[in-house]
Amino acid sequence: MELKQRKLNLATDYYQFSVSNVYYEMGIGDRTAVFDLFFRKNPFDGGYAIFAGLEQIIEYIETMSFSEEDIQLLHKNHPELTDGYLDYLRNFKFSGEIYAMPEGSVVFPNEPLIRVKAPLAEAQLIETTMLAIINHQTLIATKASRVCDAAKGDSVLDFGLRRAHGTEAGLYGTRACIIGGCSGTADVEAEYYFDVVSKGTMSHALVMSFDDEYEAFEAFARLNPNNVIVLVDSYDTLKSGVPNAIKLFTKLKAEGGCKGNYGIRIDSGDLSYLSKEARKMLDAAGHETAVISASNDLDEYRILDLKNDNAKITMWGVGTKMITAYDCPALGAVYKLCALADEDGVLQPKMKISDSAEKITNPGYKKVVRLYDKDTGRANADLIMFDDEVVDETKPLKIYHPQYTYKNRVVEDFYAKDLLIPVYIDGKLVYESPGLEDIRAYCKAQKKTFWTGNLRFMNPNQFHVDISDRLYDVKKELFNKHKK
Amino acid sequence: MELKQRKLNLATDYYQFSVSNVYYEMGIGDRTAVFDLFFRKNPFDGGYAIFAGLEQIIEYIETMSFSEEDIQLLHKNHPELTDGYLDYLRNFKFSGEIYAMPEGSVVFPNEPLIRVKAPLAEAQLIETTMLAIINHQTLIATKASRVCDAAKGDSVLDFGLRRAHGTEAGLYGTRACIIGGCSGTADVEAEYYFDVVSKGTMSHALVMSFDDEYEAFEAFARLNPNNVIVLVDSYDTLKSGVPNAIKLFTKLKAEGGCKGNYGIRIDSGDLSYLSKEARKMLDAAGHETAVISASNDLDEYRILDLKNDNAKITMWGVGTKMITAYDCPALGAVYKLCALADEDGVLQPKMKISDSAEKITNPGYKKVVRLYDKDTGRANADLIMFDDEVVDETKPLKIYHPQYTYKNRVVEDFYAKDLLIPVYIDGKLVYESPGLEDIRAYCKAQKKTFWTGNLRFMNPNQFHVDISDRLYDVKKELFNKHKK
Repeated sequence: MELKQRKLNLATDYYQFSVSNVYYEMGIGDRTAVFDLFFRKNPFDGGYAIFAGLEQIIEYIETMSFSEEDIQLLHKNHPELTDGYLDYLRNFKFSGEIYAMPEGSVVFPNEPLIRVKAPLAEAQLIETTMLAIINHQTLIATKASRVCDAAKGDSVLDFGLRRAHGTEAGLYGTRACIIGGCSGTADVEAEYYFDVVSKGTMSHALVMSFDDEYEAFEAFARLNPNNVIVLVDSYDTLKSGVPNAIKLFTKLKAEGGCKGNYGIRIDSGDLSYLSKEARKMLDAAGHETAVISASNDLDEYRILDLKNDNAKITMWGVGTKMITAYDCPALGAVYKLCALADEDGVLQPKMKISDSAEKITNPGYKKVVRLYDKDTGRANADLIMFDDEVVDETKPLKIYHPQYTYKNRVVEDFYAKDLLIPVYIDGKLVYESPGLEDIRAYCKAQKKTFWTGNLRFMNPNQFHVDISDRLYDVKKELFNKHKK
Repeated sequence: MELKQRKLNLATDYYQFSVSNVYYEMGIGDRTAVFDLFFRKNPFDGGYAIFAGLEQIIEYIETMSFSEEDIQLLHKNHPELTDGYLDYLRNFKFSGEIYAMPEGSVVFPNEPLIRVKAPLAEAQLIETTMLAIINHQTLIATKASRVCDAAKGDSVLDFGLRRAHGTEAGLYGTRACIIGGCSGTADVEAEYYFDVVSKGTMSHALVMSFDDEYEAFEAFARLNPNNVIVLVDSYDTLKSGVPNAIKLFTKLKAEGGCKGNYGIRIDSGDLSYLSKEARKMLDAAGHETAVISASNDLDEYRILDLKNDNAKITMWGVGTKMITAYDCPALGAVYKLCALADEDGVLQPKMKISDSAEKITNPGYKKVVRLYDKDTGRANADLIMFDDEVVDETKPLKIYHPQYTYKNRVVEDFYAKDLLIPVYIDGKLVYESPGLEDIRAYCKAQKKTFWTGNLRFMNPNQFHVDISDRLYDVKKELFNKHKK
């Protein structure tokens, strides 16, 4: 048996085919369209998100074509798809333009994270796959960023694979965890895809497979001399596990010392109390450098609470809660048409009207600009504006609160930076994805440009994302036109 | 560019390699071990789960081997893995026995869903991948079962791909949705893997791409004559969308009628009110057979509430909440060693001790038996017992409440059925996975053998899963031995 190769080109909703078939047959499939990919609400009741998934979008676009087998499958199951359209798919190659945020960017609601400008039928066809990729990785990267902030510089490892939504969610989830700040993962497959080396400790099954806990520890140490992290809670953490660990470390020291990481992992019980007692016992035996790591249903709130209780843990194995984004397992990013060329090829702004004000979209071909304070280098606000608008850095700028527009403030002495960068121009890839470590470093540096209040877990100070005056006017105009 | 083929053989935690390396080098890797895969708590505060994912476990086991490239990767990144062990991996082929529940089974906490009996090193190595697969699909199948129960026979479609944890979570998530009772999916890739045909309606972008809503509807109908479900909430559901739909259906009827499905989809606003008004308007125009479908953040509770409010919806498109199992996005199944052969090859029961009583495992090589009432054919209780035990159907049987053992009752006039079926014997696959529709039908039939109280969404009557007297005695004995 061989595993079937995935079909990313078909990993989409059927309506993308039926609708683009309509575009094609009605002769509007070639009209230039602009779509924005964005989310409406920060996940986890937080103040921001970390953008992730662009490299997989590129892999998707680069391999996006249809084999004869794909065409035959579509034809058999969907006889309504026209011959002309199937021919169009046969020759499909993305020919448009894509701008996107770099991965690891700190991003906010309503900002275009990806902007696609392409023939309508093409831009439509890639919606679902892009959303599935970005919704997943951006969600997990954001969760990981929060968890790592709680750990305040301690090492955080992703241990979540077994609880991920399948092994691929584990693989790209761990990628997102590393972008968000994790120092490593237990997932071995990640080594094959990304520039990481998987890590781990030992399992309860190992300890249970030996008649004696110490025997298991010793056997493990003999074969893993550079990473002697022993699991101490199989029988009794303080009466059996830690004493056996100490016995082992003392023996190893006598034989010339542990060569790499050494220490213990606690996986159950009161992690704070157990870590403090274990620390005392290890220190008393002269093993001040032994690491105490912990796992067991951790998330940012539990880590915060354990730190607050002075738990003596400096390495955190985080599983279920991070890899599933447990308290908010969907980001809800959307992909909306915001401009479409008319018969004469002139791009016209489009806006989705909704009874829910927050669901009304921003029309037009737009960019996002971040305003930094010249003195502090801190990000002050983001501005969504038409692509051809220019921010005048020499003049004070009035910024409105995104919802409560009666609240506003004037930004002065700032410089502006474009956030969207070119990824595809005329169907040609013009961007090279950085390595995972570089993306993590970029994310870390980006976070430092924000006031900590914007990044707080609970009740963050809301970062202001405003729209330009011209965009506001066009929005008002389109709204009034629709109401008529 | 080509997409890299997934490496399921590496989609595991590193400690599975380091620990099985220890087994191998300590000469215990060949000892026969028994592991149970089970969960401890029903998801969604419900009373049951639907087992799913076995077919993917089989695909995993069948393709589980290591290429020279894999071996070199492991060797380079993990020089501590011994040459002997890497050779062992070079020749790896699963040689053990696997019993499992059939997919679509109604299952309960602590029951072995999969029982592996294999050389220790082999059984250890397959833990994480199996857990990731079963945790995901069983979770989503259970959620889907609840959603479909709420819909009370109405068609439920999975629309969740864009919110899934990546496209693979979408693919196997939709498989699980269908097992749980969904009648279809929007995910086209599912057609390539399973015997389904994807379905869909139309997007807001289609409506916005035409100057006029009616024009968009008409163009869609012309190209999709067998599935004219139009999206009516782009501008104003009752003032524009439904009147335009009626205009279209009336025209189609005049031309000879709609040949397949026809109707409307409502995707925002008060679904109950809008559906009632739309129903009146459609009926008044003679379109009594037009379907009203709805989507927008639905789950079992919202559908229940809408039904309770007499909403005139008979087709439900369910996305985010089902594909992510939003209110409980992880199942938490575990895989525990429960027996290991001693030096003489005699299988000895193993039990994990824990301070948390519910985490103490059931030792030994076991089976699960379901007791059915002879009169009603309803399932009365499940019994976990050693594999060599026999239930005496001729005698009354005392069943204890799983937690509150002072509660018990006597079961009489029952027949017993083994729930675990052979999948692998001596490393040979002896089971053929049924098609998806057969699994869905099996699931539906299984659910009918339960009292509705056991399957209720909230505060279900807890189904009793007891352990045999002999298992209870061995458990007590091992516990006391450990305490000494």
